[in-house]
Amino acid sequence: MTTQSDYEARLHGVRALMHMHGLDFLVVGPSADMVYLTGAHTRPSERLAAVILPQLGPGYFVTPAFEAASLPEMPEGTQVKTWGETDNPSALAANIIADSLHGQPGGLNCTIGVGERLWSVFLLRLQAELPRASFTPATAVLSAARQIKTAGEVAAMQKAGAASDDAFGEFVGKQFTGKSELELSAVFADLLKARGVQLADSPLVASGPNSASPHHHSGERVIQQGDAIVLDFWGIVDDYTFDCTRTVFAGGVPAPGSEQAKVYDIVAKAQEAAVQAVRPGMTCEALDQVARGIITEAGYGEYFSHRLGHGIGLDTHEAPYIVEGNDTALQDGMSFSIEPGIYLPGKFGVRVEDCVAMVDGKAVRLNNADHGIISVR
Amino acid sequence: MTTQSDYEARLHGVRALMHMHGLDFLVVGPSADMVYLTGAHTRPSERLAAVILPQLGPGYFVTPAFEAASLPEMPEGTQVKTWGETDNPSALAANIIADSLHGQPGGLNCTIGVGERLWSVFLLRLQAELPRASFTPATAVLSAARQIKTAGEVAAMQKAGAASDDAFGEFVGKQFTGKSELELSAVFADLLKARGVQLADSPLVASGPNSASPHHHSGERVIQQGDAIVLDFWGIVDDYTFDCTRTVFAGGVPAPGSEQAKVYDIVAKAQEAAVQAVRPGMTCEALDQVARGIITEAGYGEYFSHRLGHGIGLDTHEAPYIVEGNDTALQDGMSFSIEPGIYLPGKFGVRVEDCVAMVDGKAVRLNNADHGIISVR
Repeated sequence: MTTQSDYEARLHGVRALMHMHGLDFLVVGPSADMVYLTGAHTRPSERLAAVILPQLGPGYFVTPAFEAASLPEMPEGTQVKTWGETDNPSALAANIIADSLHGQPGGLNCTIGVGERLWSVFLLRLQAELPRASFTPATAVLSAARQIKTAGEVAAMQKAGAASDDAFGEFVGKQFTGKSELELSAVFADLLKARGVQLADSPLVASGPNSASPHHHSGERVIQQGDAIVLDFWGIVDDYTFDCTRTVFAGGVPAPGSEQAKVYDIVAKAQEAAVQAVRPGMTCEALDQVARGIITEAGYGEYFSHRLGHGIGLDTHEAPYIVEGNDTALQDGMSFSIEPGIYLPGKFGVRVEDCVAMVDGKAVRLNNADHGIISVR
Repeated sequence: MTTQSDYEARLHGVRALMHMHGLDFLVVGPSADMVYLTGAHTRPSERLAAVILPQLGPGYFVTPAFEAASLPEMPEGTQVKTWGETDNPSALAANIIADSLHGQPGGLNCTIGVGERLWSVFLLRLQAELPRASFTPATAVLSAARQIKTAGEVAAMQKAGAASDDAFGEFVGKQFTGKSELELSAVFADLLKARGVQLADSPLVASGPNSASPHHHSGERVIQQGDAIVLDFWGIVDDYTFDCTRTVFAGGVPAPGSEQAKVYDIVAKAQEAAVQAVRPGMTCEALDQVARGIITEAGYGEYFSHRLGHGIGLDTHEAPYIVEGNDTALQDGMSFSIEPGIYLPGKFGVRVEDCVAMVDGKAVRLNNADHGIISVR
């Protein structure tokens, strides 16, 4: 439950970052950024809805008039500005910015940070309305603010993770062989929903050779004895997300010495090593390298074809990204996935994913589904 | 089923419109625009995926490398360009554009039409990479192309509408009183899914005073005898969408002469009159005025607080918008909703919505759920 004092603290932090980065305004469309700043869950649509936050002075929430009644209570000081079906909402937004600048030394020369997910059509209209303004992604401000979680946010993600653990525990007791990926995905979705999880997508069920495609879409393939099955599931509980992957095996665990057993063991070791390696000041790319080094050492480096992980919070994917080239230093309050994988084309794939939060300098897992090698019927 | 020759025809039409509007390139992110041009259902994410379509020469599909295997077969002549986890995809996109311009008289001065829903963060990066290019919404091209449906597209929407009719018919036989809006929404969602409908959102169930809020979110309110209940349901069958609204009454139809009966009658008449009024060359705003005039004449004009309708196709909301100020002339192949409503704050609301396509100069309904006043248990 996000309180008025949480929003006050968020706005305070965001404005400090705006000052640091020289942004006079933020313009943020429907997205987790908007939820973070105001609690409004407005859906993106062809009708402009946006938060306009000056570095100084009150914030504004621009909304179609007929949706104003559905908005939550706004953070103190935020004014709701409505527009009617025949108004020009881009002009309204531009006027709000121009009015805020009235009497400022630079006049209409200002720098506007734009929320990453605002639709381009709205940005282009705003650029046309404000030709003297410069526009830049708001990422440096909003990602920096959002990537440091409070204890309350970590607790919310643990609650979401616990719901997913519980659903997973029941799911792996079900019959897998003879069922299609899509059928199993629907069964798993129902188990998650029964625990209060809001799903944007059904869980990913990738079996046999399909498990070698990291973002496979669950399909008609029927599970067979001996399949590796990658189960990747994510969802929302009270605004905060979980994201977890386990790889299970149909009809018994793989024989010791088999390639499946060997690959599972490497991935699980790389995952655990990365979780244990998390410490303050370590860069994101160094953490990626911990897992990647183990997999490369074992001879499978070329088959670990994606980054180690992504931040998680209000969005399933957000900063910090755990990827080569990202020299962001890890610090307390950051939460992210650790999800190494090995994908052998035409054969099978294995991925193991937990999300963690850094608390008191160490990684604390946000989900705790069984890490052992699991066989399903 | 969209064939290679459908895509060929679409690209041909889009390029003719690009020529007319002076656009050298289109850049289109994950959206119905992308589905229209390529059939790819890539989800929007922090990883850039985009169609880059030069007015002349081959098209490109930029994708994260590890998702390339999930793409459908591309339209003939479209090249897939992949990027790896540590590459800069904005630079890749800019290079594709620069290479296409190589040796052109204007050099890197070009005009780029941007798909409406491309995330701003990608547009801002592309603007930084291509400082001599000018950027404008691709709306004039893509909306103009998409708003004229082929016979195949109209048939696809009729199929989607028929699935929704069937689900609605079963749904209104269920018990309503004593159930919450959310419970009923879940029941209706299951009936739609059982008919192959893909739902982005559960149906809207707005009861009693909640029905007076046009975009109410289904909530905990329990249906009571005498409630007006607005049921708004939309979804996707084989890529094409339906959208329908009916207002039903709990525990018997409203007494003749009651305000509920009177308002229902006005809305239903306004809806039918607008459907009958559709003809080629009529403007969107004139059609809006047909329904609005009837409602205003009856004394409820101020309570019809939204536009008459929106186009429908691959998106639930797309061009043409049936709204004051839109002088687009209706023509064969256009498909759109006709959904007048009257919303009496604190009391109740009524909306009746059908989608239609203009075929041979007349509106053909895409859905055919019962238009009579319906009572539910």
